[in-house]
Amino acid sequence: MIVEKAAALLNQQGYLVSSVYDVMKETGLEKGGIYYHFGGKEELALEAYRFARDLVGHEIKKALHSTDSSIGRLYALLEVFRNLAHGVPIKGGCPTMNVSIESDDAHPALCTEARNAMAWVYKTVKTVVLTGIEKQEFAPDCNPDQIASIFISTAEGALMLSKLFDDTTYMDRAILHLKSYLSSCTANLSKPQGGPS
Amino acid sequence: MIVEKAAALLNQQGYLVSSVYDVMKETGLEKGGIYYHFGGKEELALEAYRFARDLVGHEIKKALHSTDSSIGRLYALLEVFRNLAHGVPIKGGCPTMNVSIESDDAHPALCTEARNAMAWVYKTVKTVVLTGIEKQEFAPDCNPDQIASIFISTAEGALMLSKLFDDTTYMDRAILHLKSYLSSCTANLSKPQGGPS
Repeated sequence: MIVEKAAALLNQQGYLVSSVYDVMKETGLEKGGIYYHFGGKEELALEAYRFARDLVGHEIKKALHSTDSSIGRLYALLEVFRNLAHGVPIKGGCPTMNVSIESDDAHPALCTEARNAMAWVYKTVKTVVLTGIEKQEFAPDCNPDQIASIFISTAEGALMLSKLFDDTTYMDRAILHLKSYLSSCTANLSKPQGGPS
Repeated sequence: MIVEKAAALLNQQGYLVSSVYDVMKETGLEKGGIYYHFGGKEELALEAYRFARDLVGHEIKKALHSTDSSIGRLYALLEVFRNLAHGVPIKGGCPTMNVSIESDDAHPALCTEARNAMAWVYKTVKTVVLTGIEKQEFAPDCNPDQIASIFISTAEGALMLSKLFDDTTYMDRAILHLKSYLSSCTANLSKPQGGPS
């Protein structure tokens, strides 16, 4: 599938910086064929990003459905990040972080899609925490926005480090830390507020 | 200064994705002048990145010299990240994260420089913690590698979120969390190991 091959390439080499020639080599299409399929280089980047984003989105939904426990769902989401650090389901790290760093106001369509995708992940984590508070799994006074922020910041930053140094240890450390942090927010602890202390 | 203007532009728009035409508009140079000064587009990206990296490096060194306390030094480093989220000393986020996401094996010079710069930041944080252990500010059994990983992952990830959503709240939350985490690693607490619990 052309978009699948393009996504695999662009998530590693960059959605905007990769040349049409790179995509020709990867997909086996001629330049005319790429423009026929995608309309242009920015549309190609957009379609490839959507494909990669949906691959990761599918993994996130699977993780959410893997258990009824709120903390279990967050642990399962952490495994999605661990897998990304290992190049699964796609090599090159988090498509949404990649696009968010690469694109700016000069590429409004890509930028908007990345913002929407990250907002969805944020809302997903926050909703799991809110449900966990209702179900008395999380402490009633823990802060869902604080938890969602720390969860995503730490995991995405660790993914960047793991990719840069080609060493998944950074992700392993982030997951160890976030599990400890999430435990400190559960209902059976006395000091569940935002920070870990 | 030409490289200063180029760095200000490329740290926002992308080191590799920005066109020579964009740089011409920003610097007022003709295309020939840009090639005369920088030799080529990749050299331009490299010089602009080095300028931006050194701007941030200068802020990091200032933070380290602002106090003798190890935890105080890490708090001062957090303010460097907070300032970056506010576009100080340069707009567009962390130059090293930007380059690390944008560049890959196809751009070995940029990739190597970004890796070296991030390794320097990592070593800096780790050394502050090691010194803090020697000075009995940090607990003897806390893990300097774990602390350096979590510090950088969380701050860089929060910078990405703050930039993507144009909202420094994500950075404020990361700093709140990291201060709490660092406090849990200080010598007067009984459970200083890697995680916050």
